[in-house]
Amino acid sequence: MVTINDIAAKLGISKSTVSKALNNATDVSEEMRKKILYTAVELGYVNKRQQKKEKKLCILIENMDYNTPNQFGHDIVLGFKQMAEPEGWIVDIVPMTISFQKLTPYSVFMMQQGYQASFILGFSLLDPWMKEFRISKIPAVLYDNYINDNPNIASVGCDNQEGFELAVKHLMKLGHKKIGLISGPLDSYILKARYNAYLNALYKYGLEVDEDCIGLEYYVAESTRKYIPKLLAHGVTAILFSHDVRAIAAITECDDRGIRIPEDLSIVGFDDLPMTSYTAPPLTTLRQDRIALGKCGFYALTCLLNQVAIGSILLRTSLVVRGSTGPAPIKEQEKDKI
Amino acid sequence: MVTINDIAAKLGISKSTVSKALNNATDVSEEMRKKILYTAVELGYVNKRQQKKEKKLCILIENMDYNTPNQFGHDIVLGFKQMAEPEGWIVDIVPMTISFQKLTPYSVFMMQQGYQASFILGFSLLDPWMKEFRISKIPAVLYDNYINDNPNIASVGCDNQEGFELAVKHLMKLGHKKIGLISGPLDSYILKARYNAYLNALYKYGLEVDEDCIGLEYYVAESTRKYIPKLLAHGVTAILFSHDVRAIAAITECDDRGIRIPEDLSIVGFDDLPMTSYTAPPLTTLRQDRIALGKCGFYALTCLLNQVAIGSILLRTSLVVRGSTGPAPIKEQEKDKI
Repeated sequence: MVTINDIAAKLGISKSTVSKALNNATDVSEEMRKKILYTAVELGYVNKRQQKKEKKLCILIENMDYNTPNQFGHDIVLGFKQMAEPEGWIVDIVPMTISFQKLTPYSVFMMQQGYQASFILGFSLLDPWMKEFRISKIPAVLYDNYINDNPNIASVGCDNQEGFELAVKHLMKLGHKKIGLISGPLDSYILKARYNAYLNALYKYGLEVDEDCIGLEYYVAESTRKYIPKLLAHGVTAILFSHDVRAIAAITECDDRGIRIPEDLSIVGFDDLPMTSYTAPPLTTLRQDRIALGKCGFYALTCLLNQVAIGSILLRTSLVVRGSTGPAPIKEQEKDKI
Repeated sequence: MVTINDIAAKLGISKSTVSKALNNATDVSEEMRKKILYTAVELGYVNKRQQKKEKKLCILIENMDYNTPNQFGHDIVLGFKQMAEPEGWIVDIVPMTISFQKLTPYSVFMMQQGYQASFILGFSLLDPWMKEFRISKIPAVLYDNYINDNPNIASVGCDNQEGFELAVKHLMKLGHKKIGLISGPLDSYILKARYNAYLNALYKYGLEVDEDCIGLEYYVAESTRKYIPKLLAHGVTAILFSHDVRAIAAITECDDRGIRIPEDLSIVGFDDLPMTSYTAPPLTTLRQDRIALGKCGFYALTCLLNQVAIGSILLRTSLVVRGSTGPAPIKEQEKDKI
């Protein structure tokens, strides 16, 4: 096993300096501390807290609010703790920033804090640690992100494919045949996944894929302003949205334009945010059970900590049918026939 | 809660007959026992063993040998037990047949035996219980099978997509550009999944998909006899196989025909069966870690038993490079150029 002596020998410094740096003593310069920590990681040094198997996990969270029950991350954090704490784990919640990641590698941060594994919420492909996860040896479970080939990293998220199939099936039963998609640009794992899920669901149910029925746009209000008239002009009678926030923006947009929901247009969200019951009309949406997602995060970590190299756990979504979906409008020509 | 009295009242029989039937007493006719059990399930009766939470699980196994370490199912069963038994679960292994399933519904069987959940190995789409799993309320985890929409059923298996991508990447590094597939007909979940994984992997790495490079055939020896010459004639220099057994048959076939592996043709299997180290040449293959698969089965059941409705857990595969893959052969025309 690698000892403090090995680190000291490699750097040509005293054992006590190494010890101080590893124990966060204040009389070691920041530069030296880093040098020592990086070398410790490089040599595979296991610190005392890790040796003692102090059971300590962290949730690293970014771009996601979690403090109050109506915020998206709240129940994910809660579900994780509900599983982890009864099993004796200490769970720290650590807000994360890109600038912090630039200064400190993931493995150094984890070793320094004595965390055995992490649950990662809200990271984007821009986060510097996403690159490190490709080679990291310290287990991490990523929500709605995926890292190829590394047996120490797993992914949890909802089964977007099954979800979109549920939504398309529901809309087809209501007579809809031309179903559109409004989403963000395909520069994130989750938006790509939902885009593909949309295409596959249409294909599965024998509906035509038409790129004029798809609107991809970063800004939420822009996406509805630009694409709702365009999609309606193309004969779309129902629109799936990548996220509830976009669907809720669509309700406002339709209200402004005198487009009736669901009489003129049915819309389906994704997430089941608490506010979706209170929109007018209330939103039909694909529910992500966030408590269960948090629990999944812990189960996935348990697998990794037991050397079971899972790649992903997918949670089922359920379709919550509310007022924003209804029978497809009858076209003028068809009305004449009646 | 439903009691024995409710069942007796519904059937117009005595409470003691119901009790006897539920406790497998011998003085109740088989016909009556069934009537009582079916009614108990229909009413949602929970028997004493389930009430007491006697921790009892079963592995239902079909079409898969598991008694000796070199058989495919052995390590899956072992991995499952390694996780379950230390947590106080009794795990019974129950060989299953189609005829038994025709006589007894899954829910009745599980209630009668006091099992809280099951791990299902080797079932095919023909198994009668596969239909019942669509609506079953008793948790089951299926290996290499998937049931849509039922939150009580989950799936575990390997990530075929990631596996085939590893194999294609490996072959491309060796200079292969025309990579074929030999597999079975697309009438099972797993064969469909691997077929799609093959198509997607070629697409991802910018290789042409050519249906003349694909051979799908039920019988193992037939598939290699028929398709190896055909694929070679179409310029294929490497073949992926859906299973090791097919790849091993291909080694024999190539030997008979004087086709050298890997000089003339590279081949990659799937599974990493124990015998693949001993073929001549030893087989390059995608490894399913069967101990880990068994453990995943237990983790997935744990999720379901805690009301976490996961759809699937995918285990990573790893590519085990042995002697059956090598540099792509240089074509005659290209030789001239050198």
